[in-house]
Amino acid sequence: MLYSKLLGKSKKTIANYDSTNARLLEQGGFVSKTMSGVYTYLLLGQRVLNKIEQIIREEMDTIGQEILMPSLSPKSLWEQTGRITKIDALFKVLGANELSLKKNSAEYILNPTHEEILMPIAKQYFSSYKDFPFAIYQIQWKFRNEPRAKSGLMRGREFRMKDLYSFHTSEEDFKIYYEHSKKVYFRVFERLGLEKDTVICMASGGVFTDDFSHEFQTKCETGEDTIFYVKSKNLYYNKEVAPSQAPKVIYKEEKELPRKDVEGKGIIRVEELAEFLRIPVEKTTKTLLFETEKGEVIAAGVRGGYDINEEKLRKIVGCKILKLATPETVKKVTKAEVGYAGLLDLPKTVKIFMDESMDNRINFEMGANKTHYHSMNVNFGKDLPKPKIFYDFKLAEKGDAYPETGEEYVVFKAAEVGNIFPLGTRFADDFDYTYTDQQGKRKKIYMGCYGIGPSRIMGVLVEKFHDERGIVWPEPVAPFKYHLIGLDLKDQKIKKHAFEIYKLLTTNYKLEVLFDDREDVSAGEKFSDADLIGIPHRLVVSRRTGDKVEYKKRSSKEAKLVNLDEIQ
Amino acid sequence: MLYSKLLGKSKKTIANYDSTNARLLEQGGFVSKTMSGVYTYLLLGQRVLNKIEQIIREEMDTIGQEILMPSLSPKSLWEQTGRITKIDALFKVLGANELSLKKNSAEYILNPTHEEILMPIAKQYFSSYKDFPFAIYQIQWKFRNEPRAKSGLMRGREFRMKDLYSFHTSEEDFKIYYEHSKKVYFRVFERLGLEKDTVICMASGGVFTDDFSHEFQTKCETGEDTIFYVKSKNLYYNKEVAPSQAPKVIYKEEKELPRKDVEGKGIIRVEELAEFLRIPVEKTTKTLLFETEKGEVIAAGVRGGYDINEEKLRKIVGCKILKLATPETVKKVTKAEVGYAGLLDLPKTVKIFMDESMDNRINFEMGANKTHYHSMNVNFGKDLPKPKIFYDFKLAEKGDAYPETGEEYVVFKAAEVGNIFPLGTRFADDFDYTYTDQQGKRKKIYMGCYGIGPSRIMGVLVEKFHDERGIVWPEPVAPFKYHLIGLDLKDQKIKKHAFEIYKLLTTNYKLEVLFDDREDVSAGEKFSDADLIGIPHRLVVSRRTGDKVEYKKRSSKEAKLVNLDEIQ
Repeated sequence: MLYSKLLGKSKKTIANYDSTNARLLEQGGFVSKTMSGVYTYLLLGQRVLNKIEQIIREEMDTIGQEILMPSLSPKSLWEQTGRITKIDALFKVLGANELSLKKNSAEYILNPTHEEILMPIAKQYFSSYKDFPFAIYQIQWKFRNEPRAKSGLMRGREFRMKDLYSFHTSEEDFKIYYEHSKKVYFRVFERLGLEKDTVICMASGGVFTDDFSHEFQTKCETGEDTIFYVKSKNLYYNKEVAPSQAPKVIYKEEKELPRKDVEGKGIIRVEELAEFLRIPVEKTTKTLLFETEKGEVIAAGVRGGYDINEEKLRKIVGCKILKLATPETVKKVTKAEVGYAGLLDLPKTVKIFMDESMDNRINFEMGANKTHYHSMNVNFGKDLPKPKIFYDFKLAEKGDAYPETGEEYVVFKAAEVGNIFPLGTRFADDFDYTYTDQQGKRKKIYMGCYGIGPSRIMGVLVEKFHDERGIVWPEPVAPFKYHLIGLDLKDQKIKKHAFEIYKLLTTNYKLEVLFDDREDVSAGEKFSDADLIGIPHRLVVSRRTGDKVEYKKRSSKEAKLVNLDEIQ
Repeated sequence: MLYSKLLGKSKKTIANYDSTNARLLEQGGFVSKTMSGVYTYLLLGQRVLNKIEQIIREEMDTIGQEILMPSLSPKSLWEQTGRITKIDALFKVLGANELSLKKNSAEYILNPTHEEILMPIAKQYFSSYKDFPFAIYQIQWKFRNEPRAKSGLMRGREFRMKDLYSFHTSEEDFKIYYEHSKKVYFRVFERLGLEKDTVICMASGGVFTDDFSHEFQTKCETGEDTIFYVKSKNLYYNKEVAPSQAPKVIYKEEKELPRKDVEGKGIIRVEELAEFLRIPVEKTTKTLLFETEKGEVIAAGVRGGYDINEEKLRKIVGCKILKLATPETVKKVTKAEVGYAGLLDLPKTVKIFMDESMDNRINFEMGANKTHYHSMNVNFGKDLPKPKIFYDFKLAEKGDAYPETGEEYVVFKAAEVGNIFPLGTRFADDFDYTYTDQQGKRKKIYMGCYGIGPSRIMGVLVEKFHDERGIVWPEPVAPFKYHLIGLDLKDQKIKKHAFEIYKLLTTNYKLEVLFDDREDVSAGEKFSDADLIGIPHRLVVSRRTGDKVEYKKRSSKEAKLVNLDEIQ
């Protein structure tokens, strides 16, 4: 490819970007932002994306068969699982103007995932125990209604996804496949140069299962996720599910004081409150009220400085849906305006749950259940019965310990590069999809789903592999293998020679070469463009290189003259 | 690939299909219909599609550079060209439920074509005369709000498209590229096995240009288009633009009779009217009233049996927009209810246009411009002034002649497999995209666009290449090269042998093989499945084939025993 002809030449600066990967990819001419979270892949970017997808395809072919599902689907499929009202990123499609609506006023779904599309197809073809297990995958666009797409290619409204679905006759069979899939995923990350910094991490199973799902997380300072690592056990948790034990607070020689209610109108955030009351933050208490799907009201308290992890709490409460109580319920139950709830003197119908971070405190604060008032010097036994059990339903924070061993977590930022989910029998049930066993009986089907986002990985690769001068692509996904730079090209002899070398490399050696053939650009500019674009091997031909070429790796500083036949 | 594991095994019959290609592709397990006009490509279909796209890609790489544009775009881009209200197939995208709308209530366009997306990108990078000409292409999904998608893969709501856009500094330069693109297109059709039956045909330039566009049309009885061929000139016209001359009607010794008005309430269609009045259809006249963008009213008449081609008429009238007059206008102008309009006694403000098919008639019929009445025995000179010019604005019909030579058209059905359009300066103008010439002056940019639909081509290939037993794929796009059929596989020795051959072919010979390894299926069923699927080369291994295999081409009837090393 001649660089002079490339749509997507390097830019010195760009105006708006939301992340390092967006900046470098746009500056280097890999992508062009069409709108927030929606990118056009220019030739360079399209080549990187294709290479990432081809690596994923080759590995997935060892465990599944490729198909290609559409982006549009009828609403009826999504009604069948109920997800039409539940997925908060769901897009629909309909005629955009009067002419179009007059032709056809129907509405369709723009698929954010493809379980609903695949179920009726699988059901058509595979229903005997002999057909199982099987696994189907595709590499296709996905669409999600992200409010503010950010992080460049790491989170988009429209993005590429490899999604694989496995089907099994038993949970045991599913688990064997699931464990094997982790190995296949690591082969992908190995080929992408990410394996050393990528870990398997427990994450939420979402609404489908109480089991964990597993995320493949690559250590990355600009990643969106926070990982909690238990060194002694070599276990990784996503912050959202990490079990946690708060650092103990010790009050030497402090005596229990009598409770008193203090007026503090509008002082609701714990930091403000601690300052106002002149107490440490950990003496404050955050109380939230929730309602279950059965209409029960739950009061939950954590020590100031923590947030409640609703998913952890839901599992403890043992309900299906847990949502924040409405202001009306809060007022009814606490007899106070929202913001002053505590665990004191609540009606008996309200079940109280306390996080373990609340334990071991003396003279702590708590909402007084009285508008504008906060109770100080609350103590267990005296003001509030000490619960039989303290739970763990807070969102883990840096500094917390892993409860089982008591060791402090190692905490780091990471970017998700893949995830795998046990789906249980849920989707098969929704589509009344069963298999017939050897005795002719209909039995339940167990499923898993397995995602990797090629466009997201492209973003993560840039976040991981760049320096102050630009991108440093891992060789297997680089848009070209060689970046040939021609200098002194206004000299027709040199120009002819440079083009001959380009032809030799591409036609005879069959190498992928980007040739910077621009005549009106300085050597410095060409070198800095090459560094920005990040192709692994740089070659320079100039007045000074004679019948050799200058060779330099993007990742090293040393350049040397080499013979052409040393290049391959 | 083991056939026993394939998602998408052959079906004896399928319930609903709209075309031969839909039936054979669904029966053969290539696709599964997700909804009308929206298909899932199963492994076999996905492989065919990929091969078609790879052929297109290789040829397009000789004349353009590949990028990948998104499916979502902001409305603002479509407002810039005004096409947001004009494209009658335009889809928009927005949150599908309350949760989603609450997160983000914005609306986007789901792209049916990509001029609007490419213009701002091209403008960013190429603006000097030195950068021109250039051409950019992609292979991507397109979405169109088709009311009733039919014809299987030949017309979908969601389909694959290769769209290339070329940019030029002058119309002359554009034309050189445009002519060259035709040759490149024919290389594609040659590789697909379609070149012999494919012709370049003049078609409507749409709203962008008064020039013709060009369609690549493959002769095909089930095609959606009708082509008019001028043999002596070797010219092809799409019916929608074919110039036409109606067969002359000769009235031997018929004398002109006095006009009379006959009551015929509700008799409006010309066939009914001819029967009612006991005259031949060609003596009836169809009159339609139109309004231009300036509010002028036009009356246009053609002989019964023809329809008016509004696009031809628009060019003759010389206006930008021509639309059927509203019922109110018809009543005002003709002083009669709709359905009884004629060219007699119209107000002077109404411009009258007559098609050449109206000429040479005696005692013809015409609406009387009087509710429920038809005028009979109308004659030029007496009842109606003979116009100075008769035009050609009818939709050509079989039997018509090419006006220039007077020869009758050869008419045939065809399926569009590609189209190329001169776009003029329209899109560049809308985006204020110009280039700077050698003198530093800003000049207009001329563009062309060039489409081929890979999924549509897959449908056309099936329409063209099938027999009563199934599909007969051209070798370059067949999903596999060899279909290996194992018989007598319940015999473990034969089974082992068959698997060894499969391994030899795939691992040693690196051939693409679909291996029918099913044990519980009869030979007859396997052969008929192989015929249905249409892989070019069939191999059979059975108790009777010994150390050889039976070889048969899908397109021939003869089978013969061959040595394994003869296969490659």
